[in-house]
Amino acid sequence: MVRHQRAHRRFDDRPVDDDLVERCLEAATRAPSAENKQPWEFIVVRDPERRAAIGELTRDAWRAGGRAHSEGRLPAHLLAEVDDGAEGGVAAAPVLVVVCGNAERGLPSTLPASVFPAVQNLLLAAGALGLGSAMTTLALQRADALRVLLALPDHVTPMAIVPLGWPARPLGPSRREPVAERAHRERWGEPW
Amino acid sequence: MVRHQRAHRRFDDRPVDDDLVERCLEAATRAPSAENKQPWEFIVVRDPERRAAIGELTRDAWRAGGRAHSEGRLPAHLLAEVDDGAEGGVAAAPVLVVVCGNAERGLPSTLPASVFPAVQNLLLAAGALGLGSAMTTLALQRADALRVLLALPDHVTPMAIVPLGWPARPLGPSRREPVAERAHRERWGEPW
Repeated sequence: MVRHQRAHRRFDDRPVDDDLVERCLEAATRAPSAENKQPWEFIVVRDPERRAAIGELTRDAWRAGGRAHSEGRLPAHLLAEVDDGAEGGVAAAPVLVVVCGNAERGLPSTLPASVFPAVQNLLLAAGALGLGSAMTTLALQRADALRVLLALPDHVTPMAIVPLGWPARPLGPSRREPVAERAHRERWGEPW
Repeated sequence: MVRHQRAHRRFDDRPVDDDLVERCLEAATRAPSAENKQPWEFIVVRDPERRAAIGELTRDAWRAGGRAHSEGRLPAHLLAEVDDGAEGGVAAAPVLVVVCGNAERGLPSTLPASVFPAVQNLLLAAGALGLGSAMTTLALQRADALRVLLALPDHVTPMAIVPLGWPARPLGPSRREPVAERAHRERWGEPW
C-alpha cells in the first residue's frame, strides 16, 4: 500500500458510505500512542455548509500567505495541484475528517507523536479501499474559526484535515528521493 | 497489518540485516510530507557502545521523571513493560533508528505532520517483515546529549527512536477503544 499513497485533491460526486468512513477510522485507532492513551478525536463533517466554511478557511489561509510561501518552492505542476485543492477541491470531498488531539488524554508535547501516526493509518486505509485522501493542514492556520465551527472545547486541538472521496482521476506513483539520500550510518553524514 | 501493530520492547539475539532495515526505511520515505519536501533523516545505529549510550539516556529520562509521570496513569502490566524497555530492553535491539526532522527542508511547525507519518510507515513495514519495533520518545528528553552522540547539526532535531529486532515473544492484539468513543458527527460531542 505505502508505495501507492498520493495526495488526492479532486474528487467525483459519488457518495462515501459511513461504513467506509468507519473502516478508515478503525484503522486510525489502531495506531500507537504515548501510554496507549489514544488521544485522537475525529470530527466527521458531511454537511455541505460546514464543508464550505472549512473550504473558505483553507482558501483564506492559502491566499493570505500559504501560496506566497509555496511559490518558488514547489514545482509548477505541484503548485497548481495545491492551488486547485485550496481553492475548492479539498472541501468538495463528500467527507472531511478533522483529526484532533485531546490534551486531557495526553501531554500536549506528546500529541503529535500520538496523533499523526493515526492520521497516516487513516490515509493508508482510505487508499486500500480505493478512496482518495490527503493530509492537509492549511485550514489550521485559522484554528480559532475552526474551533467555533466544530464546537471544539479548549483542550481539543485540530491537527489535520483529511478529505475522503472517490478520486476524480487516478494518480501515478509518488516521487521520493532514494533512501540513501536521507539515511546515515551511526552518525550524521556517514553514508548508509 | 494495522490490527497487529504492537510496541515491542524485548528482542532476541538474532541479527537484523541491512536489507531489512532498508526495506523499512524505503516504506518510511513513501509517507506524505508538506510540499513533498521529505524532511526526514534516519540515523541507523548498530554500534553497541552508541546503543548503550542511547539506552543510558533513556534510562536516565525514565528515572528522572518519566516513570513518576506514568505511575498511576498506566496499568501495572504496561508500566512493567515500559520499565523493562527503558531499563535496557529497547537499547538491546540490534538496530536503533533515530528519526529526525530537518528544518532546512520544512518549516519547523510542519515537521511533526511530515515526520511522524514516516515513522508510522517504518513501524508498519517492520511488522510486515516480522520484526518487532516501537515508537519511543523518552530519550528525546536528553536531546542535547543525543545531538552530540549522533553529531546532529543544529537544524536537525531527533523526533523518535525506533528499535528494530526480532521479537523475544509474540504479543497479542492491541487494545483500543471503539471508534464510536472517539468519533463525532459534524461537531464535537455529536454521536457518530
